Amino acid sequence: MTHSLNAAVIGLGSMGWGAAISLLRAGVPTTGVDIASQVLQRFQAEGGRSASTPAEAAAEADVIFVFVVNADQTEQVLFGPNGAVANARAGTVFLLCVTMPPSASIALCDRLTASGMQPIDAPVSGGSVKALAGEMSIMASGDPKAFERAAPALEAITSKVFRLGNTPGMASQVKMINQLLAGVHIAATAEALTLGAKIGIDLQQLYDVICECAGSSWMFENRGAHIVAGDYTPHSAVDIFVKDLGIVASEAEEAGCRTPLTTASLALFHQASAAGFGREDDSAVAKVLAASANVSLPGVSTAEKS
Amino acid sequence: MTHSLNAAVIGLGSMGWGAAISLLRAGVPTTGVDIASQVLQRFQAEGGRSASTPAEAAAEADVIFVFVVNADQTEQVLFGPNGAVANARAGTVFLLCVTMPPSASIALCDRLTASGMQPIDAPVSGGSVKALAGEMSIMASGDPKAFERAAPALEAITSKVFRLGNTPGMASQVKMINQLLAGVHIAATAEALTLGAKIGIDLQQLYDVICECAGSSWMFENRGAHIVAGDYTPHSAVDIFVKDLGIVASEAEEAGCRTPLTTASLALFHQASAAGFGREDDSAVAKVLAASANVSLPGVSTAEKS
Repeated sequence: MTHSLNAAVIGLGSMGWGAAISLLRAGVPTTGVDIASQVLQRFQAEGGRSASTPAEAAAEADVIFVFVVNADQTEQVLFGPNGAVANARAGTVFLLCVTMPPSASIALCDRLTASGMQPIDAPVSGGSVKALAGEMSIMASGDPKAFERAAPALEAITSKVFRLGNTPGMASQVKMINQLLAGVHIAATAEALTLGAKIGIDLQQLYDVICECAGSSWMFENRGAHIVAGDYTPHSAVDIFVKDLGIVASEAEEAGCRTPLTTASLALFHQASAAGFGREDDSAVAKVLAASANVSLPGVSTAEKS
Repeated sequence: MTHSLNAAVIGLGSMGWGAAISLLRAGVPTTGVDIASQVLQRFQAEGGRSASTPAEAAAEADVIFVFVVNADQTEQVLFGPNGAVANARAGTVFLLCVTMPPSASIALCDRLTASGMQPIDAPVSGGSVKALAGEMSIMASGDPKAFERAAPALEAITSKVFRLGNTPGMASQVKMINQLLAGVHIAATAEALTLGAKIGIDLQQLYDVICECAGSSWMFENRGAHIVAGDYTPHSAVDIFVKDLGIVASEAEEAGCRTPLTTASLALFHQASAAGFGREDDSAVAKVLAASANVSLPGVSTAEKS
């Protein structure tokens, strides 16, 4: 199947790569942009086109996905030197698939609209495996006409689109609240399993029972399994939550809201990052608690605990 | 169906009442004990027998369930004046269905064993509705012979028994870890929904989306619905978590474990209790955060927020 639609993906990290490959698989001609030339070569080998700048990629695109790391990078690839917007045709749909402060997403979407573009505020989730399978989830808000135009591309990369209103901003707000809960639940999982280990409970049995009880959470089931197995291969890294809970904390402060659990969790992620675990799986926040309690967790060496 | 087994239930609060009624429904002759005489009259009207003291109830019982509030009350009804143990036959099975510090449960079970009784450490969960339906969950550890003897009674009141080893203590330990997670997740739910309301997100939509995302938890789904509906009818009260997270905090301190999320959550439950919400649903912890952020939550009057 081929589409009349041309897509571009700016940023071929784990999520952007998965999106770009899923677009190719669905027959959508797709141009990739990344600062790493090896990644672009790999993408060409998969049948994609590569561009050296966002501006070059934007020239022929009808739909442009932005998969960079944060709001600053998003602004650069859109409006900076060789940015996409100056070279894009009027009416091009821009999907901002970046977890950033809602206020930043709203401001960038407003600038896109003022430049004659059609923005969709579209933070994603699901991890790299789902991204590669074309099954990420997107929370999205924007003009229905933009959704209509982008529909074949969205269908190619997602298993679920949460439509959250016609005005950009709402999606990033809901995503931020989701990250608050996700980050706190990871920290809670670490705290619970570390205390369990310290008082001598068998972690596998503890995990199995809690998964069936009212203390469970999506993150307990998912990340708890990593801690019990002692496997800190990064699916999503500690530093992602340093960023995402940092966004929650600053936006909450701005709004005049107390967020004591976010504050406590963010401190743990900061400590884990400072201890050298920033690129490990986010469940490595447990290593900080284990070290301070002098308790052994599966797969954690003594050196890491010091 | 009738059983040769005679049961007693000490403490006819919401969980104990549900257990006692479920025992009657299953044909197990059951004696109830409570300090409230109206409750005993209601129990007689349902076909139960009543006793005025634990000692009186213990005389004919093969299996005795203890459903009082905490470790001190448990000690009183077992070993205090008119306590059950002095009057019980050797080999009577005692199920301690109370959430208490694991160290206290172990000590009480040891004393029961020393008195010739068969103790099962058996904290329960599930709430009053499930209790009444004979569908509570029990985490239980103790001698297999005690389980065998109590089987018809356990079957009458539970839908799920988690067997956690042959020595009392393990069940209370796992229950404590479950309560850590449950309490933190309730506080996180309150924090997330309050921030969501403050930045203007529609709470029903936020709730519906998060329930399908990685930020969800059993408590978010359950208690989040209470906050969105503005319904603080107590299913489980704020003061229960003042107690249960207090147990976690003190046992963790004893063990030399940092529990920053427990600490932050316990502070919120204390604040909610001090503000007069101790007997409301535990989700009323959100009222404390809403008041400090000056944000309206559904069903919360201005007076409550001041």
